[in-house]
Amino acid sequence: MKPKIAVSIGDPNGIGPEIALRAHESIRSFCTPCYFAGFDLLEDAANRLGLRIPENLLHSSPASAVKIEPGTATAESGAYSFASFKKAVDSVKSGEQDALVTLPINKEAWMLAGIPYKGHTDFLRDLFKKDAIMMLGCEKLYVALFTEHIPLKEVPAAIEKKRLVRFLLDLQRETSAKKIGVLGLNPHAGDHGVLGNEERIIEEALKEANERLAGSEHGSVFEGPLVPDIAFSPAVRGSFTYFVAMYHDQGLAPLKALYFEESINISLNLPIVRTSVDHGTAFDIAYLPNRPLSLKSYIEAVSAAVSLLKKPHRP
Amino acid sequence: MKPKIAVSIGDPNGIGPEIALRAHESIRSFCTPCYFAGFDLLEDAANRLGLRIPENLLHSSPASAVKIEPGTATAESGAYSFASFKKAVDSVKSGEQDALVTLPINKEAWMLAGIPYKGHTDFLRDLFKKDAIMMLGCEKLYVALFTEHIPLKEVPAAIEKKRLVRFLLDLQRETSAKKIGVLGLNPHAGDHGVLGNEERIIEEALKEANERLAGSEHGSVFEGPLVPDIAFSPAVRGSFTYFVAMYHDQGLAPLKALYFEESINISLNLPIVRTSVDHGTAFDIAYLPNRPLSLKSYIEAVSAAVSLLKKPHRP
Repeated sequence: MKPKIAVSIGDPNGIGPEIALRAHESIRSFCTPCYFAGFDLLEDAANRLGLRIPENLLHSSPASAVKIEPGTATAESGAYSFASFKKAVDSVKSGEQDALVTLPINKEAWMLAGIPYKGHTDFLRDLFKKDAIMMLGCEKLYVALFTEHIPLKEVPAAIEKKRLVRFLLDLQRETSAKKIGVLGLNPHAGDHGVLGNEERIIEEALKEANERLAGSEHGSVFEGPLVPDIAFSPAVRGSFTYFVAMYHDQGLAPLKALYFEESINISLNLPIVRTSVDHGTAFDIAYLPNRPLSLKSYIEAVSAAVSLLKKPHRP
Repeated sequence: MKPKIAVSIGDPNGIGPEIALRAHESIRSFCTPCYFAGFDLLEDAANRLGLRIPENLLHSSPASAVKIEPGTATAESGAYSFASFKKAVDSVKSGEQDALVTLPINKEAWMLAGIPYKGHTDFLRDLFKKDAIMMLGCEKLYVALFTEHIPLKEVPAAIEKKRLVRFLLDLQRETSAKKIGVLGLNPHAGDHGVLGNEERIIEEALKEANERLAGSEHGSVFEGPLVPDIAFSPAVRGSFTYFVAMYHDQGLAPLKALYFEESINISLNLPIVRTSVDHGTAFDIAYLPNRPLSLKSYIEAVSAAVSLLKKPHRP
């Protein structure tokens, strides 16, 4: 039997509904998707795009009808995308569906709707009381983010040894990676203290994490602190598949420079399987005719969710 | 007559001397290089590498002899690379040479030697009393750095409107660029204030810089603040050749992920032409046999210096 995938529809005013509709035929060859969106929304989206709603499409309405306002962040669209996400999560938590794939929400719309989370991962962390790890990438290169959606000025103080050791060990257990490159925080990884000193904390955390794994076959999994602007150059990235970035743009700017279309977002260290596209709502092109729209990240995300379900250590 | 290029030799314990020796035949087809290094150093390097010193090679000894200690930062190597750089700068300033190309120095060795500069650009800024702009890249993509060699935690406070306006106008004048993408500081460029608010300062600076150019044909050169992790994705970088990054790794990590070998470092807003390789001393491979060593960045740097000399607005 094909795995059952709960798809949260994302912000109704973004490209989520279109991606769901256009990719349906591709993904139903290897899974059975259920879209957490009302028929009214799917129909409105299909009409605006000149698409046909596929036959026998499974869906589940998360809230009362919402009117599409292309490319606009509204309290209504925020409330709808949150309701869709929450209902999709519940369906996986209860075992009704097997895994969760999320389409992009808009953070401003969530804020307008009074939703106290900065993104999907924040909510999942709160719901499951687990330190979910946000990892983005593709088979060639994965980047796990030690800090995520916080202002840049809050990053340096967030580099704490104890939390970093825990993060590294969780990441290794979830990925089974034999080698993980860990970035420094400062330019030139601090150049021996000339350009900042948070690298000492990172060094100590790497040492402790490696020691804790020393009993197993993985005694020196973690390497670093790597010089951030060299870590993704061809020679260095050739030695690693997994990287840990200290902050959002440090890891995601090079990743998206290299592998934008095929990258996905995976939540690790949670009791459910959850993947996501690596892009946003693309309000600037939502519901417009004749512009390129790649389905690649979404199809990869669904495919990765199906693969993760087959991993033996899953709960 | 071929342009005369002053080449500072970089740290004697790094890959600088080897690059100079190996690339000599290539670059002398389009310029006349003069190496700021003693014959003793060049000979020692050539012997260690099994190379022959090219005939009729011009050089100028910057200091008394130095002993090569491969891959080690020492006070001696720091003092030597600084003396080489300083003498090379003087030769261009006095008009004896036409342009300056620098090979990599080691910041720790400079510190050990008591040199109060964090890098070449810092010294040039101080010498010429000009706000030199550090720009790295290649024909496909240039990134100018608004802040450079400072700890990450000092970056947010350095985002000042007045300085940024000046920087943007200087950059535009020096490059003649018709369109320049300016990055935000925070993840998602702050997401309308949810993830930081330095983007307001950047927005105001862009507005003012655009207004100041409005009298000329360049009324809306500056676009931004761009979302940092999307700015270098294929679709966005397709629209810009020039970017301004708010800090070192924000711009250089994606640049080096994409164009490591061919990128160079150009100092703008100075009364002399100066270019450099975009890489460091590579202490880990200096003077070792059988490892790959790319001459590309250096040859590109020399070639760019020659091209810049031909630009009409040069002093």
